[in-house]
Amino acid sequence: MFSKFGKLLQGETVRLSQCRRFYGQPVLPYDCVQDMTPSSLVIEAEARRFIHDCLRRLNVPFEKLRCVSDIMLAADYRGIHGMGIGRLETYLNDLQYGGVDITAEPEIISQTSVTAQVDGHGAMGVFVGNFCMDLAVEKAIKSGIGFVVAKRSYDIGMASWYAFRAMASGCVGLVLSNSPAMMVAPGCREASIGANCLAFGADGNHSHFMLDMATSVKGMGAVEWANINDERIPVSWAMDESGVPTTFPGVALRANRLNPAGGQNGYCLATMIDLLCGVMSGANYATRLAAMSAEEKKVASSNLGVAMLALDPYVFVPDFGERLDDFKKRIDNSTPVDKSRPVRMAGERERLYMRHVDEMGALSFPNTLLAKFKHIADSLSVQPMQLAFINAKPKYLRF
Amino acid sequence: MFSKFGKLLQGETVRLSQCRRFYGQPVLPYDCVQDMTPSSLVIEAEARRFIHDCLRRLNVPFEKLRCVSDIMLAADYRGIHGMGIGRLETYLNDLQYGGVDITAEPEIISQTSVTAQVDGHGAMGVFVGNFCMDLAVEKAIKSGIGFVVAKRSYDIGMASWYAFRAMASGCVGLVLSNSPAMMVAPGCREASIGANCLAFGADGNHSHFMLDMATSVKGMGAVEWANINDERIPVSWAMDESGVPTTFPGVALRANRLNPAGGQNGYCLATMIDLLCGVMSGANYATRLAAMSAEEKKVASSNLGVAMLALDPYVFVPDFGERLDDFKKRIDNSTPVDKSRPVRMAGERERLYMRHVDEMGALSFPNTLLAKFKHIADSLSVQPMQLAFINAKPKYLRF
Repeated sequence: MFSKFGKLLQGETVRLSQCRRFYGQPVLPYDCVQDMTPSSLVIEAEARRFIHDCLRRLNVPFEKLRCVSDIMLAADYRGIHGMGIGRLETYLNDLQYGGVDITAEPEIISQTSVTAQVDGHGAMGVFVGNFCMDLAVEKAIKSGIGFVVAKRSYDIGMASWYAFRAMASGCVGLVLSNSPAMMVAPGCREASIGANCLAFGADGNHSHFMLDMATSVKGMGAVEWANINDERIPVSWAMDESGVPTTFPGVALRANRLNPAGGQNGYCLATMIDLLCGVMSGANYATRLAAMSAEEKKVASSNLGVAMLALDPYVFVPDFGERLDDFKKRIDNSTPVDKSRPVRMAGERERLYMRHVDEMGALSFPNTLLAKFKHIADSLSVQPMQLAFINAKPKYLRF
Repeated sequence: MFSKFGKLLQGETVRLSQCRRFYGQPVLPYDCVQDMTPSSLVIEAEARRFIHDCLRRLNVPFEKLRCVSDIMLAADYRGIHGMGIGRLETYLNDLQYGGVDITAEPEIISQTSVTAQVDGHGAMGVFVGNFCMDLAVEKAIKSGIGFVVAKRSYDIGMASWYAFRAMASGCVGLVLSNSPAMMVAPGCREASIGANCLAFGADGNHSHFMLDMATSVKGMGAVEWANINDERIPVSWAMDESGVPTTFPGVALRANRLNPAGGQNGYCLATMIDLLCGVMSGANYATRLAAMSAEEKKVASSNLGVAMLALDPYVFVPDFGERLDDFKKRIDNSTPVDKSRPVRMAGERERLYMRHVDEMGALSFPNTLLAKFKHIADSLSVQPMQLAFINAKPKYLRF
């Protein structure tokens, strides 16, 4: 699926020796990392091995391992770290203490030739998401459009993953998902709705469009990532527990109160997504997803909703690919005020990040996160993640 | 269609005498308005008569008059004045000097049981929009979903109108439309994309959800309305011709440079809508809709695109109506910081405005706009709009 974006996520892994040659450095064991300097590089195969080992300890069946690691590594590969391997701990917690049923399989409750309602049965979000999008694509290939909603899903991770699945079959994909209430309506202090996400992707002949956005200024994943990196967050992102804007990601994580993007616009968009994913699918929605106690949280977060739409664009225009390429050219040609910061089509920033990862030959993770992985490895008695290059300072692209 | 919202737009007009009794005032001829004080009241039937008379002068056939006046008056009734009768002059200009073909009828180019591509043939936007949504609804009633795109459309006016059409048949409606380039990408000074709009509506048993938003902070209609009312606009809405924020609506109208809502989020959402409405329908998109000369503008603005989706929610959940009512209750129950400004579900603000119009028994227009109508009436030799109550100061609701 990622043929256009490099080799990293195709299973043909860049070998450790390549990376070593690349940096002229020997591979060192994890324990050598003493100080918490910025970040270290990890070969994709090794990151995948670590994820698989951890999941195996929690009895995730062999045939399901790849499905989970794929979406996490794809997120890190695309630079959407908030949805990447940094979420491993959350997923492991869900598996150990949450309501995720690892043996559950999503099931079609009802369907027509172009629509379906799915019951996720509390399976991991990625299984429900893949199932729904594949079903929507199957319908779209036959009839031009397919629309599938699901209830009883968990967090589906990086939404654009499912849009890519649609694109792999020549379709345009729209992915909507709700989340536990963590966004505050304009003029309020309490979270009453999820920072519900939207992803939309389409393939041209030589370009692709991929929008992956939360309806909050930034998603909770970005706040978590800032926390891992020990960075402050902009004042517009989130509030503390008394409803006052905060720049501390740790405070924002505890308070669970994100601001909607564009105020009323972002809030209304989130309610629209909730209506489609939650109200219309049979899942929970709005404050039915606001957790009061840990037990309620367990129940609430296991009934998220998703909605997936697949469309065959060639049903409408035979030259869709060329038209999309021309569209991209027109967006790229916008004249920016600061020439070092050109305007980019949605998904272009991520494509550049992937190229950057390809050049490095490895994924880069902050050492604070790697220390967390070390802790996970110890607690699960799993071999710690082996680093390819310690304390690397990969250039961070400015987009 | 508006049975839930009062009588004004059902053709059963509130009679002038009723209004007179309501205010205890005689009906005065238009010419008595001397000073440009805030606003005056006009009975819906009279506003409709005026629109019809003007359109008849430009040879709009009898059977099409109601279709055009319906959408304009519905906008004013809902308080979305930017899309209301204030646009009459623009439409008349399009009919006289633009490329609108009043005899044209939209036509299906290709279709499946659930999708269709339509050629608007340069007909007025409202004809294309109605045609597309009705087609989508027809398909949705049969199969659960209907998706229709159209090229060669004009400005479709208030997008929520078409969502209401879907709702009148028990469907959920999504309306997307692109527009000539009038929005500036973050970090740019030139407009490169339309302030493309999105409307989404769904009916509950005792409530309705209706989101109608531009992807800019506010649509150009709102700027026009501020200009008509001689009001300043907030600094976040628009830029002048050198790319500097402006608070003068007249300057903003000339410069044609709106800011996206939520910065990157609004911009990306606009590109997504453009992709669906423009790239995928065969219409123009992005800077292909940026007009250089008047002639180019004529050609470009006659090839806008629309995309309409109708969904039957009862295919998925049999108790959709109740669930939506519960959803609304949860949104209404959000605790605002300022109790006089409660949180409202999308569409609730407009519902309250409609109640306010019902109470008044007439629509209220600023006198500056009415003076414009007087000018139109003179130039087209049409009887001027008769006012029900001059210099009324209707309470403006704070939402």
